Amino acid sequence: MSRYWSPLVHTLDPYVPGEQPKDQRYIKLNTNESPYPPSPQALAAIPAAGGELLRLYPDPNGDVLKDAVAGFFGVGRANVFVGNGSDEVLAHVFQAFFRQGRPVLFPDISYSFYPVYAGLYQVDARLIPLREDFRLALEDYPPDNGGIIFPNPNAPTGMALTRDEIEALLQRNRDSVVVVDEAYVDFGAETVVPLTAHYPNLLVVQTLSKSRALAGLRVGFAVGDPALIEGLERVKNSFNSYPLGRLALAAAAAAVADRAHLEQLCSRVVQTRTVAQQGLEQLGFQVLPSRANFVFARPPGGDAGAFYQALRNHGILVRHFNKPRIREYLRITIGTDADIAALLAACRAILARKAA
Amino acid sequence: MSRYWSPLVHTLDPYVPGEQPKDQRYIKLNTNESPYPPSPQALAAIPAAGGELLRLYPDPNGDVLKDAVAGFFGVGRANVFVGNGSDEVLAHVFQAFFRQGRPVLFPDISYSFYPVYAGLYQVDARLIPLREDFRLALEDYPPDNGGIIFPNPNAPTGMALTRDEIEALLQRNRDSVVVVDEAYVDFGAETVVPLTAHYPNLLVVQTLSKSRALAGLRVGFAVGDPALIEGLERVKNSFNSYPLGRLALAAAAAAVADRAHLEQLCSRVVQTRTVAQQGLEQLGFQVLPSRANFVFARPPGGDAGAFYQALRNHGILVRHFNKPRIREYLRITIGTDADIAALLAACRAILARKAA
Repeated sequence: MSRYWSPLVHTLDPYVPGEQPKDQRYIKLNTNESPYPPSPQALAAIPAAGGELLRLYPDPNGDVLKDAVAGFFGVGRANVFVGNGSDEVLAHVFQAFFRQGRPVLFPDISYSFYPVYAGLYQVDARLIPLREDFRLALEDYPPDNGGIIFPNPNAPTGMALTRDEIEALLQRNRDSVVVVDEAYVDFGAETVVPLTAHYPNLLVVQTLSKSRALAGLRVGFAVGDPALIEGLERVKNSFNSYPLGRLALAAAAAAVADRAHLEQLCSRVVQTRTVAQQGLEQLGFQVLPSRANFVFARPPGGDAGAFYQALRNHGILVRHFNKPRIREYLRITIGTDADIAALLAACRAILARKAA
Repeated sequence: MSRYWSPLVHTLDPYVPGEQPKDQRYIKLNTNESPYPPSPQALAAIPAAGGELLRLYPDPNGDVLKDAVAGFFGVGRANVFVGNGSDEVLAHVFQAFFRQGRPVLFPDISYSFYPVYAGLYQVDARLIPLREDFRLALEDYPPDNGGIIFPNPNAPTGMALTRDEIEALLQRNRDSVVVVDEAYVDFGAETVVPLTAHYPNLLVVQTLSKSRALAGLRVGFAVGDPALIEGLERVKNSFNSYPLGRLALAAAAAAVADRAHLEQLCSRVVQTRTVAQQGLEQLGFQVLPSRANFVFARPPGGDAGAFYQALRNHGILVRHFNKPRIREYLRITIGTDADIAALLAACRAILARKAA
């Protein structure tokens, strides 16, 4: 608290990211990073873009990355916005589209940064409860709103909507912006980027932190109608002209261009996810059907807080949200096969000790 | 214009950065970059921090960089805030401290991003005119304000205040935050970082884009009382948990630690600045006394717009602001000795042609 703060600052309830331990003692299954390295082409782009060139500002428009994203999806450069991680993109989204008179709608159980952005930009938010089975039912979103945002697949449940379900929402919701946060889409859900050509109020946000294994680089992007992109550019150019440095632009553009690496990485994660899901179920966990690079699982007995701590004592970090409706669950990132084998062994040991 | 934009977006008047031409055809004296490369230690830190580690999120607190900055100035980690370029730091400053009932004060001729931030955060801004001779007279800043911000040295004039002049302001202005934007301070002005220990309302902002030759990396920081830093952290953690990637944190920390490189770079720029100033004056330019890595100079006759274009035709980019009071001036970045020799030769040729 300080008398020098703007009044708003006293009201903020900042986001708390998952732990980033500074040593490597843990098997880190808590922040949905890729267990596999980024594209070699992305890594190779860094020395070429860096060195003495770092004395010069980057391209403020990030065209090399916009063109890579546009090429990947078969859209135009004017359909693409890029930012310093999808978190920055999402922040600009709240500023650019959701500061309307009417409330923005998002699920009660979802990415916990959404209510934080709403607080920062003084956007009235209305949380729409997931159904009892954690299904995101878009038919529950009323038409009178100032915007709608949800992740697909949802976090931390991992459950996905189909493109048809999202298009049905777009058919009836044409007066406000609909943002689909596709951070995890590459692990088994359907992207709605192709729908952006038909719905000028649809914006799709993606990140390079998950399926492209570049969480440490900080790059995200959005795809949508040029008028939406222009709104984001106006906010961005009123905030920071150069959000992406030379290394990030070059490495991200190369990563997006390497489609084979993306597909191979996702396919490995999806295979291991099946192993994890089946292994946990055999141990008595309830596991929600996941289309993401994590599973959301309720340990037998539902004391997820104690289970989190027990796993930590076994050297395994997972994520526990001590929040209504989900405090009996753990979010477990899909690591390598060895990581998941270690996870299952630890779970087995913890459960055996409890039973003894 | 779009019906999907928040009403605020229609009112924004975004910042326009200097040109970043994508070819290397020009001698680039338009965006105050360093003509010399960054610290070799900064460049060497990049491969070590990158590679496969890029799959993992960076430290959200950026402690390695905070500690480097703290060590440089002899302050504590809790006195340091870091961001994605000083532009991001300044944006958070407007959000964190200047959204008060009273207007924020800054010079009429100054960094042209300040009014843009004020627009973005709906902060009432009152511009205080520089004196006729472009002097920033802090005695003109009335006590009833919601904050004060100015660059020292000022941009685009290059003129500096002394530490005593700034301390006199702090003596009488204790109820609002005073932000000194020291982007160019290392080229010959006095930093007021030591005063942060005595004035809890003083925040000093610096960048690695100028004297540390890392404009392409995007790193800035602020130093001040822990309560001010906490206010910035609350805003940052409501906006983007991870504003700085692994490469930026590691390279920036190494750059800040390399004090000898900073001193050598600045000393070379200051020497060349003297050559530029004298050369321009010999050609009939009026040159303001600069403590920055640029000079602000009025060509003979004062048709700076035409002179800008003529220099461009000679392959030299400088910056012209077509704005009241300064449209007869050019802002010329201090490049290498060869760059400045080429600049002076081009000026001579342009003036000779005009005289013929």
